[in-house]
Amino acid sequence: MIETTRTVSTLRSWVKTCRQSGKRIALVPTMGALHEGHLTLVDLARRHADEVAVSLFVNPTQFAPGEDLDRYPRDEQGDRAKLDARGVSMLWAPTPDEMYPDGFSTTVSLDGPALGLETDHRPHFFGGVATVVTKLLLQVLPDVAVFGEKDYQQLQVISRLTRDLDIPTQIIGGSTIREPDGLAMSSRNAYLSKEERQVAPVLNITLKAAGRAALAGDDPRTTETKAISQLLAAGFARIDYVAIRHAESLAPLTSADIKAGQPMRVLGAGVLGKTRLIDNLDPRSA
Amino acid sequence: MIETTRTVSTLRSWVKTCRQSGKRIALVPTMGALHEGHLTLVDLARRHADEVAVSLFVNPTQFAPGEDLDRYPRDEQGDRAKLDARGVSMLWAPTPDEMYPDGFSTTVSLDGPALGLETDHRPHFFGGVATVVTKLLLQVLPDVAVFGEKDYQQLQVISRLTRDLDIPTQIIGGSTIREPDGLAMSSRNAYLSKEERQVAPVLNITLKAAGRAALAGDDPRTTETKAISQLLAAGFARIDYVAIRHAESLAPLTSADIKAGQPMRVLGAGVLGKTRLIDNLDPRSA
Repeated sequence: MIETTRTVSTLRSWVKTCRQSGKRIALVPTMGALHEGHLTLVDLARRHADEVAVSLFVNPTQFAPGEDLDRYPRDEQGDRAKLDARGVSMLWAPTPDEMYPDGFSTTVSLDGPALGLETDHRPHFFGGVATVVTKLLLQVLPDVAVFGEKDYQQLQVISRLTRDLDIPTQIIGGSTIREPDGLAMSSRNAYLSKEERQVAPVLNITLKAAGRAALAGDDPRTTETKAISQLLAAGFARIDYVAIRHAESLAPLTSADIKAGQPMRVLGAGVLGKTRLIDNLDPRSA
Repeated sequence: MIETTRTVSTLRSWVKTCRQSGKRIALVPTMGALHEGHLTLVDLARRHADEVAVSLFVNPTQFAPGEDLDRYPRDEQGDRAKLDARGVSMLWAPTPDEMYPDGFSTTVSLDGPALGLETDHRPHFFGGVATVVTKLLLQVLPDVAVFGEKDYQQLQVISRLTRDLDIPTQIIGGSTIREPDGLAMSSRNAYLSKEERQVAPVLNITLKAAGRAALAGDDPRTTETKAISQLLAAGFARIDYVAIRHAESLAPLTSADIKAGQPMRVLGAGVLGKTRLIDNLDPRSA
């Protein structure tokens, strides 16, 4: 039966008990509103550890004013039932006050993989994510932590900060789970109208096509521009970026880099109706 | 016999061995050039743990260009002998490349106690300190870590970041060790000429007098200004600050705050010849 805790001290008692019986621990950080994408990360975590903890915290510091903090979907009871059915031992659901007590003064920030892409459009985002993920990792000190590849830049940022700060946890990326038509699963898909839902898969289709074109030798910058036009023509209200990048540093790749076999990722983000969607893929395996 | 290690992986093997035999670990971070002040911190650390590790790392990121990074005193062999005689088990002496490998991208920063005072005069300082101390704490994951009260603002910054990031280590402050004439021991005292060495104790004497005046009801801001004049008259080339502050938040105190018994600290920093000296004290116990 899944246990729920809301304080760091009770969480640490649970961790201590696990450690005393020699168990390996995995952490899957989430903001709740769990769908099959999250549950697949849980399954991946179980393959690497004896006990799985899932954190549920809608982190206010990674939302800018005017973003969807207040309307972000919340369903703790439903989430708990799903996690229990998947064999999760611990739901770590702290309050904002437990995470950010009076006088809280510390920020973890990055350049490197945190520069550009999401940062250009959500400048607060990775500052908030890097700080809260550092806290979650240090609260649990898990052997492994699993993050979805759907938030690919976030995964690279977290991998980098974990190495840079010597956090003794292995970061594992879990593949993006998709609807049958290719749309990446996301809690925000619930915001889409019926008409928008029909347009949404074009993001994945367009990123795939851009990746294929770049692999075939087309200029990456021209390919990105063309993809943006296609997405706008398909009905997206705004495209923040389509970007053909190095898979780890996220630096832009040239045709020569791609020809030389550099690790590659195609990333895209845009707004459909009022909902911001992101996706990414490795065109060599997509 | 003291062991020396230069890689995180060998350090962690040592930590693991200690943990397997149920030993408590203390860490004393230093930049080397050890004097009796450091060794007193080591003795304090031994009272809280079974094994003491001392780190020796002259952290380049907390020196600004033009500061004394290159001429900062270094004597690893002498330091090791002193620590061995004091019963230290592990000297953790990483290279800059081990601490900051290629692609390093992460910074830990603070507002709160990091605002003002040292930050006004060494803007890079606490960014460098907060990041390297986070790394050292996470490399060793000690039960306790000991820092000198001589760098009082640094101690408050480290206490704050340790709580904020949920680092599972207790931070302990060790009293400042002084020469018979009251000068706080410091590696930088070695830079002082014979004449400067005679003037140096005036810093401590002046801070004490300022604290007494503020406790007696004198206005703190006026008292600070008077103390600065006295230090300049005594021969200091520059005074960065004399400050009467809350002992934890380091916010300025009013006469009413002091009368109400708020925790208090008097801090000062200035340049004598070419050497920057700092000191601080609790006027209620000095």
